[in-house]
This record gives sequence, structure tokens and C-alpha cells, in this order.
Amino acid sequence: MPRVGIAGATGYTGIELVRLLSAHPHVSVRRLYSKSHAGRLFSDIFPQFLGHVDLPLDPLSVDTLSDIDILFLALPHGQAQHYFDLFQSFNIRVVDLSADFRLANPVDYTLYYGEPHIKPDLLGSIPLGLPEFYRDEIRDAPYVACPGCYATSVMLALKPAATAGWVKGPVIADAKSGVSGAGKTLKESSLYCEVNGTFSAYATHSHRHRPEMELVTGQTVLFSPHLVPMNRGILASVYVPVVEHLTQSQVYAHYQSTYADAPFVTIHEGSKTPSTKYIWGTNNCWLTVRLCPDINQLVIFSAIDNLLKGASGQAIQCMNIMIGAPETSGLPAITPYL
Amino acid sequence: MPRVGIAGATGYTGIELVRLLSAHPHVSVRRLYSKSHAGRLFSDIFPQFLGHVDLPLDPLSVDTLSDIDILFLALPHGQAQHYFDLFQSFNIRVVDLSADFRLANPVDYTLYYGEPHIKPDLLGSIPLGLPEFYRDEIRDAPYVACPGCYATSVMLALKPAATAGWVKGPVIADAKSGVSGAGKTLKESSLYCEVNGTFSAYATHSHRHRPEMELVTGQTVLFSPHLVPMNRGILASVYVPVVEHLTQSQVYAHYQSTYADAPFVTIHEGSKTPSTKYIWGTNNCWLTVRLCPDINQLVIFSAIDNLLKGASGQAIQCMNIMIGAPETSGLPAITPYL
Amino acid sequence: MPRVGIAGATGYTGIELVRLLSAHPHVSVRRLYSKSHAGRLFSDIFPQFLGHVDLPLDPLSVDTLSDIDILFLALPHGQAQHYFDLFQSFNIRVVDLSADFRLANPVDYTLYYGEPHIKPDLLGSIPLGLPEFYRDEIRDAPYVACPGCYATSVMLALKPAATAGWVKGPVIADAKSGVSGAGKTLKESSLYCEVNGTFSAYATHSHRHRPEMELVTGQTVLFSPHLVPMNRGILASVYVPVVEHLTQSQVYAHYQSTYADAPFVTIHEGSKTPSTKYIWGTNNCWLTVRLCPDINQLVIFSAIDNLLKGASGQAIQCMNIMIGAPETSGLPAITPYL
Amino acid sequence: MPRVGIAGATGYTGIELVRLLSAHPHVSVRRLYSKSHAGRLFSDIFPQFLGHVDLPLDPLSVDTLSDIDILFLALPHGQAQHYFDLFQSFNIRVVDLSADFRLANPVDYTLYYGEPHIKPDLLGSIPLGLPEFYRDEIRDAPYVACPGCYATSVMLALKPAATAGWVKGPVIADAKSGVSGAGKTLKESSLYCEVNGTFSAYATHSHRHRPEMELVTGQTVLFSPHLVPMNRGILASVYVPVVEHLTQSQVYAHYQSTYADAPFVTIHEGSKTPSTKYIWGTNNCWLTVRLCPDINQLVIFSAIDNLLKGASGQAIQCMNIMIGAPETSGLPAITPYL
Repeated sequence: MPRVGIAGATGYTGIELVRLLSAHPHVSVRRLYSKSHAGRLFSDIFPQFLGHVDLPLDPLSVDTLSDIDILFLALPHGQAQHYFDLFQSFNIRVVDLSADFRLANPVDYTLYYGEPHIKPDLLGSIPLGLPEFYRDEIRDAPYVACPGCYATSVMLALKPAATAGWVKGPVIADAKSGVSGAGKTLKESSLYCEVNGTFSAYATHSHRHRPEMELVTGQTVLFSPHLVPMNRGILASVYVPVVEHLTQSQVYAHYQSTYADAPFVTIHEGSKTPSTKYIWGTNNCWLTVRLCPDINQLVIFSAIDNLLKGASGQAIQCMNIMIGAPETSGLPAITPYL
Repeated sequence: MPRVGIAGATGYTGIELVRLLSAHPHVSVRRLYSKSHAGRLFSDIFPQFLGHVDLPLDPLSVDTLSDIDILFLALPHGQAQHYFDLFQSFNIRVVDLSADFRLANPVDYTLYYGEPHIKPDLLGSIPLGLPEFYRDEIRDAPYVACPGCYATSVMLALKPAATAGWVKGPVIADAKSGVSGAGKTLKESSLYCEVNGTFSAYATHSHRHRPEMELVTGQTVLFSPHLVPMNRGILASVYVPVVEHLTQSQVYAHYQSTYADAPFVTIHEGSKTPSTKYIWGTNNCWLTVRLCPDINQLVIFSAIDNLLKGASGQAIQCMNIMIGAPETSGLPAITPYL
Repeated sequence: MPRVGIAGATGYTGIELVRLLSAHPHVSVRRLYSKSHAGRLFSDIFPQFLGHVDLPLDPLSVDTLSDIDILFLALPHGQAQHYFDLFQSFNIRVVDLSADFRLANPVDYTLYYGEPHIKPDLLGSIPLGLPEFYRDEIRDAPYVACPGCYATSVMLALKPAATAGWVKGPVIADAKSGVSGAGKTLKESSLYCEVNGTFSAYATHSHRHRPEMELVTGQTVLFSPHLVPMNRGILASVYVPVVEHLTQSQVYAHYQSTYADAPFVTIHEGSKTPSTKYIWGTNNCWLTVRLCPDINQLVIFSAIDNLLKGASGQAIQCMNIMIGAPETSGLPAITPYL
Repeated sequence: MPRVGIAGATGYTGIELVRLLSAHPHVSVRRLYSKSHAGRLFSDIFPQFLGHVDLPLDPLSVDTLSDIDILFLALPHGQAQHYFDLFQSFNIRVVDLSADFRLANPVDYTLYYGEPHIKPDLLGSIPLGLPEFYRDEIRDAPYVACPGCYATSVMLALKPAATAGWVKGPVIADAKSGVSGAGKTLKESSLYCEVNGTFSAYATHSHRHRPEMELVTGQTVLFSPHLVPMNRGILASVYVPVVEHLTQSQVYAHYQSTYADAPFVTIHEGSKTPSTKYIWGTNNCWLTVRLCPDINQLVIFSAIDNLLKGASGQAIQCMNIMIGAPETSGLPAITPYL
């Protein structure tokens, strides 16, 4: 049974990884890494894990790397690139949830992350952890770079239309996310009273997930993220100017067939209104596909749980492929109603 | 001092009218009308008004109409048109918050509201209660039809660009509203546990406020509303494909000058991220205007309080104009921080 | 494998039963009953269950009762007593989540539920579905009556102290519940905007769960429930005037030993502050036990998920005992962090 | 017109002071003090104040103290005692919202605040800013110490019963507060995702507001605070063991007469269920008084807005008394419905 380590185990995506992997039927969680809480027990910090996950938190170091076969990196950007060679030398397969290896172009990385990449030659060679499109590349990869939460929601919505050659202008991706997307970092804008009761836009046309979307879909995207007063969930409303003479059934059929083998993506007709309610707590992606033929606009709503399909769930989905387990292993399938 | 009546006083917009008008310096609230609660005291139903508004709730009838000079209609659509002649006969000036006289075309009314209008000849002749553009028409009108909450937010965002002749394709209006927009009607989708923790789209491209926007702006709008788990507030993100060679400063200056005399509209540069946090509890409209010249898209964020600038506040703003009071009388100006 | 039916499948506790039992390893869900939605598919109403639970919703009737061995009743009070004989005649074992058979005294039933019980002779003879104290009675019972959500939280907190003979006066049980406790019934007080942002008390000293607590603990309880703006969870703060000369370690040891064999109850020292955060989404009960020796008061905080340990989870725990399965089968054990 | 300064102007209570005092009819806000934001404009940090409060933020220093007559201190504890002599030397009257001068006993101060008071001789000589009981002392005082938010809610509930000699044992004060009570300090427990959807107890029997309550009421109080996922509001449920033979009408009459001259306190019979909904956004205190004669327990529910009657509103109420203005000047009276 592969032995798993989780770095950044005390952040929101890290905790989700711990929760799901500790109950996963095909792997064994051996090491939890945390800089801020090293030396304590995981269940001492998070008493809801008492009796379930009582592992210690270690600093990420050479001392324990021989204990693990697969390592999940739930770290801020800028760290994975430093560790890359080390993990290779230990023959550890890595599922990286950070942004370090998502982009193909070092110039884009510098532009969006504010400093040069230290492994620029590797950019573009690491498979993207979006199994619906890169399953084969993921299977034998030593290192997988999972896309951002927003990026995942928009890629799944837009790529089929793009591949079909239907897009004829800039795409508007108006996305809305729950607050856990901002992580557990202490900042005033994440305080309860600052968020509760309000709805805000931010980072319009400048968010770091934008170049990921454009890279994978080959389209120009006006990406416009917003913050919703709720814990979990993303709903992306993607507006695509399309060629004339498309029909709703044609569009629907194309999306259906694109995702015929994707266990976590469900396509819904345009009359089904989407909600994060239908997918939270699972690794599912809900796509409502609706053509507005009067104005040649295709509207695709994409709902995912930002912590699952947008992060930890998708990372486990990648790992399942990497270890030859069923793609759905250890991932919650049924959404709690409330 | 003009004597005021409020019909539909126990709904969310009605209660706001009662709260604000009972403290208004230039009018006197005389009659509150309610079908469901007739016979009871307003403060008996809503104890937070005890000692402040202890008026009885009456059925809306001929008996008491001579007591009032101005009547606010906070009723579901389909009722105002029936009462129209009656109010005229009593010489009552009406501020109608319902949808009955917003549209100009009877065919549109039938299409969107499911039955023919009974006063089709009047449609198009009633001034729209959007003071920023129709102040002169409102001043002496016997009857004013206030626009819908979503419509108000989008009109204020889009009309200056439209008037300037900059729009060159269908506009995307992706709007997000707090739950009070659905009113106090008992329906499962408005229950706390159905809404809390979730974000949903609904009525894509078919919402009743769409024809209002298109009528006032003269543009084709893909209107896409969403429900936010919060009580109050609308943020509309309006994406406008525009002609080439515009500049940010040109756009900003045009919006500034359009609203130079509008006490409730504030224009912000594109770098200021908008939030309902900045306007809730007031009659203000926050507009962030941002040109994305690389893709010839103008993004306008419009934030209003759906119960105030989107409904009761705007209605009082209209009344202020009608009675010759300062336009800002009785309307809260400073947003509570939380 | 026992065949299971669920009556009231479209309410909040019903949906939880469907979700958990459809994934339960030792039973097979065969029939879902619903009066309001009979004739439709479960997954048609709740699209999050598409592909997982596509069973039809039937009216509860003689026609299908031979298909099931165990029936869960998630119905309003007053119905189970009418069906009692019918279920017996079909040899169906019943786990009743309603209030019909919780009380022992017909006079109390009439007092709290407003009409006489139609099976008064049965009251007092049906085992209470609180496995921590009535495991043996539940095991072979044909019919089990699960206690109310508030009652469960207070019983688990108070009964050990009561059994030890420590209580020397009226107990204060100040309990706070999420909104799902009110069910999915349409009432104004359950609307999002009525609940969000507010905290309220209700039914002080008159709530229907009070006689259940007093019956099981043998103590006089001032039960004071409150409504919290959140979906799930109960925190009961139970204040017990106790005999002199108790010590914290003595109290803690007694609670520990009382629940030594209870897989879902965890005892925490007084310095561990309790939260619904630590148990939501699971069948767990978190008890913080704190003696204030300066005033001879024992404070016990009891946190449960009202839909799980307070309703559907506890019902499944009872069923597990009834069918000889491990008590924890099919019940979620690890709390999602958020 | 008295000239006012506000120290700590960028915290939650500070912002409320700025909002209310900038619209107050009888004073003029001259100086805003902030350590963290000194040098910026208030409306630059909080754009909702643009055009309303554009004052600069200064460090609190000798340079500007001659510009003000009255100073509000919305500072963390431990600072006011250092400035005390300075303010006296400038002849500035001070309304202190911090904890520095609330307690009478230096030993208690050291015990609860972890370090000795530097002006122990002053303790006990500064009037408490609770106008309902200390109006006369406040009127001419150079310095007033406003009580804590929880303390205010419990004092108003309990003091009449205590004064009447009815209390015959330890009082349970189970209080629930919105999150703004924790202020704007960055700490993990105040993050949105940590609070949303959960209800917690904390600081049981050890909270700093406990000795304030005991001092003012003369009773032993088991004070048990809880955190509610909402921005504003406190509901305290106060359970008082009382002497025998009291009647509901006797208790109600006593509370009515105690607060006959208190413009912000309203007494309600026990059948009126209390909610923070009825007072948020105002300086009001809602008291529901309910005797449970079967167990000789008096239950008093006390609802206040923690930022207003619990802090900034009460401070302004004190100032109104100090400057001879009507006690209600500049304080919002009608609660918004939602």
C-alpha cells in the first residue's frame, strides 16, 4: 500500500487531504508536515480528529522523506520549485496543489507571481492535474501540478466549446467563490465581520488563475472573481460568444460525449439551474450548458467545491490514477443536502 | 405636510418604507395598508417598532383614501393596474414599486408576466422612477413607476456607455442579489437552510427585469441573476464590448459628468474593488468603471442596496422630487461598517 | 440483507436517512415514502442524488409494506400512533424519529401535543432510542422511539450526574440549535432573512422536549432553547447545582466510565471549549465537563449534530443494534473541518 | 458646540463612534486617532465614508489635544491608565470604552488582566458609564468608564432583581454574542470559515466581564459566554433563583418602574420571545422578564447591540448626559427590520 505524506497539513486544503486520505482504502498516511505547528499532534490542534488522526506534525525535511512514496504539497506558491530536486532524489511522486508548475511560460510566472521561477526549464513539461483532459499524462508522471480552483471550474466549462472551434471572441468568466479559497492566512479581509453579509468583486482581469485558463483552453478570458459569504464552493458563470447556427441539442451532446468517461462531471440542460448546493462536499463538477441562440451566446455554469474538485479532491483523483486505483476511490460521492 | 399611505406595509420593501417615512422630515405617515394583517397594529406584528410606529393596518379601500396625498404601492405585480383609476379619482399621487407600469410594450408585459395588462394604453406614458435620468418627468407626475432592483443596478451602470455610443454587441449583466429580493413570500427556496452556505444562478436570460434594462439602455442584454446568502445588497458585474481606442480616463470622465448632479451615485476608478459592504443600508449606488483595453471590454460594477436604491429608497427619492423636498431627505447617507 | 423503507423521505431528517442508508454496508434501501412528492423520483427533486438514489417516492400504504423489514419514520408527530398496528401486522420493525412514543405518561402527551394519544397503553413500553443507556432494550425491540434532538443532547449531559446522585436542585439547560431543527416546513420564522444575522430565544420552559429530559434523567429541568443562524448543530449548556465536596477529577472519571463503551460520546476536561464545529456531520457527541467548585455548580456542554446524533444518525445507530451490525456502521466518523 | 476626538477610530467600536458622532446634532468631531493607520484619511481606508468623514488619522499625542473637549477612548485595555494624567492636564473630559477603570478592586484588575494597574488609587472612584443606574454620577464627571458589552446586558437584566432582594443563590448568565465583540484583531478564531456555521462556548466562568457584573449587582454570577455566527448583537439569558411567593405581575411591575425613566430600556412580559433582531442597529435594550413559579426561577432575557448599547452607543449616551443634551441625541432609535 503506497505510503503518503502531506505537506502543509494544517491549512484548509491540507486538512481536507488528511481527512480524506486517512480514510482512503488504497493508501496509508504516514507523515504530516507543518512548519507552524511542528512538534504537536494533529489531533491536538484539531480535536475533531482525536482518535482518527493522531499523527505528529513534522517539519518538511530529509529525515522522514524515505518514509513516503507519494507526497501532497499543499503549500503557498514559491516553495515546491525549491524542493523539486530533493523529492526526485528520494524517488517520491508528487501531487502539487500549489501554483509552481501550472504555467508553461516563465515570463507569465514572473508576471503573475512577482519573481522569476527557479526551474524555468521545467515549466511546460509537468502534466496538469486535470484528469478529465490529461489522464494519460498523469498516470505515470513522477510529478503532477494541479490547477487552481477557479481555473478548474472554468477549464471544465470552456474547453469543450473551445475544442469544437465554436468560440469567436473573448470569453467572460464571472466566478464566485466561498471564503475558504482565501486559505487560513490571517488577513483583515478574511475576518468574519468583514465578509459576512457582503458580496465583493476583486482582482478583476488580473487574478493568477487567468493565465492557467487561457493556456488550457487557448482562449482569451476576461476572468472576474468574486467573494461569496459562505465557506465552500465555486460557481463560475462562463459567457462564450459562439459561431452562428449552433443548436442546444448539438451543444449538449458535445459536452455529454466529452465527459462520457469522466466520473465526476455531470452535464445538465440549460433549464436546470445550477447551485453549489448540488456539489459541495464532493469531488463533483456540475455543468449547466445553455445556448442563447438569439444572441449567439453560450452560457455554461460550472459548480465545484473549491476544496475538493478545486483542490484536495482533484489531487486525490490524480493520485488514484497514478497508483492504478479506481479514479473515484476515497472521494465522497453524495452531497449532503445541507 | 403631505400625508402618506403605504400599501403592502408588511413586506420587506413595505417595512423599509414605514421605517424611513416615519422619520422623514417632510411628510407624515397616515395610513398603512395590509391584506394579510388588516386589523392589527403595525408594532404588534413588528415589536421593534413599538413606540415608534403604532398605526393600525387597514385593508386598502375607498374608506381611507381621502386621508392621504401620496401613496406608495409595495404590492405584487398585477394589482396596481386595477387600482389606477381609483387613485386618480382621489387625486392621489402614486409611487408604484411594483412592475405594473415599468414596461412600454403590452406584448412584453404579457410575455413576461403571463397575462395581458388591463391598462395597455397607459404603458409607456408613466415616468420611470429612476431620478438620475428622469428627474424632470418625475417632478410633476401623478404616477411614477419605479424600476426593479436588478434593473436599477444595471441601468445606472450601462446607460452612460450606451448613450455615448460605445456599445458594439450584446452586454452581459451578471448580477448577484441578497435574499430579501425574493420578498417575504413563503417558498421553500427562501428557507434559511436552503440558502445558507450556497450560491445559485436562476432565471438566466428570462428574468422579468431584463426587458426593463433593454428598454432604458437600448441595448441587448444577457441578464444572468444569482442568489447570494446574505440579506441585502446587489452587485451587478456588467461586461460591455466597446468600440476601440477608448481610454480609461475618457470613460471615467464621462461617467463622472453623467452623474455630476446625482447625489446618490459615486464613480470609482477600476482599481477600487466594489462591494455591497460600501452601500448597504443607504440609497447609494457605487459604480466602479474599468476599461480592459486589451480586449475592448468595459467592466462596470454596480453595487446598490436592493431594498433602498433598488426599491424603497429610490421610491422615497422620487417622492422627494415630487414634493419639492431635497432629493436626499429622509434617506440614510452613511453606510454602517458592519 | 435487511430491506429498509423511509417514510417522510423528503424532509431534512428523511433526506439524511436516505443519504446515509443508501451507502450503508449492511442494509438495502427499498422504498421511499412521501405524501407531498409521491409519484416523482427522489433524484428528480434533489438533483444531488442523481445516479445515487433514483428510487420513486410512494405514498405510505399497504401496497408496498411487504417489501421492507425495517421502516424509519421521519414524520410529524401524531402519525406513527395511527400506523402502529399496521406495521406490527406486517412484522416490520420500526425506528420512529417522531415524538409519538417518547413520553411515558399520556397526560404529558396531551399536555404537550394538544390532543390525546390514541395508543395510551403503549406509552412507557416502547424502548427509547438512546443507545448509550438503552442498548439492551433496543436490541430485540420491534419498535424504537428515538428521543428529540435537544433531549438527546441534554440527556447525555445530565444523566450521569443524576445517576450519581449529585444533583441538588433544578437544572438549567440552555440549548442552542441550528435552523434545520425546525424542519422544512414553510413558516415565516424559518425564512432566510428572518433568521440570518439574529439570535433568538423561544419556547422557554414550555418546549416539547422538556418532559423527555425530565423523564430520562429524573430531574427538574428549566429548558431554554435558542435559535442560531446556522444550518446544523446543537450546543446545550447544562448548569447543574451539585452536592459539595465533588472534585473535577472525580466528575470527569465518572463521565468517562459511564461512556466507556459508547463509540460516539467523547468526554473532555473543562478547559476544552466546546463547539458544534467539532461534531457536525457526524454522529458524535462532545461533552465538556467542568466543575466550578466555588459555587458548587457543574457545567456540562453537550454538542451534537441535530440531524445526526439528534435524529437520523441516532436512528441508524439504533438500527445497527437491532440488526446486530457494528454500532458505528454507515455513520460518518470524521468531522469535516469546515 | 463641544469638540470631540476619537481614539482607536479604526476598530469596530471606533468606526461606530465616528459614524454616529459625525452625524450628531450637538457635537463636532475634530480629531480621529489611530496608531496603525496614522497619516491616512479615514475615508481612504473606509470608502463608505467618502464625502462624509474625510478627516485624517493622527497618532494620539500632545500636539492635537488642545483641539478637543471630549475624548472617546476605543482602545485595548492597559492604555487609558497611562494617558489619564495627560487628559486631565488638558482638561479633556473622557468617555473610556476600555476596561481600565471598570473594576473597583486593584486585586481583581491584576487577576483578570494579568498585570497590576498603574493607577490603583483611582479604581472605584470613576463613575461607571451605565446611565440607567449612574446618571447623576456621570453628569459632571471628568472621566467615565463604560462597562463591557456582556456586562451591560447582564447588569440591566439582573440589577433590579438584586436590588429588590429577591436573589437567593448563584445566578447563571448564559450570554451569546455576535463576532464583532472580538474586535478587528487578526486571530484565527475570528476568520470567516472558523466561525461561519458553528456555535461555541468560551471563557466559561473566567471571562473578564464577570467581575464587572458581580460588582454592580452584588451577586455571584456564573458567567458563560458563547459565540454566535452573526456580526452584531448579544442575547443574555439570565437565570436567577429567587425567593418564594413572587408573582409575574409583581416582577414585571418592579422592572417597569426601575426603568420608567430609561429611554433605551423596554420591558416585555415573559410571553414575548426576545431576539437580537429587535434591537440591532440601535441603542435599545430589550428585557423579557419571566417568572417560572414552579421552580422559583426568574428568567430574564436581555438583548442589546454589542457595538451600540454594549459600547459606542452607550458611550454617546453618557456623553449626551455629560454635555446636557437629550439622552437620546444622535442615537438610532428604530431597528432596521433586516
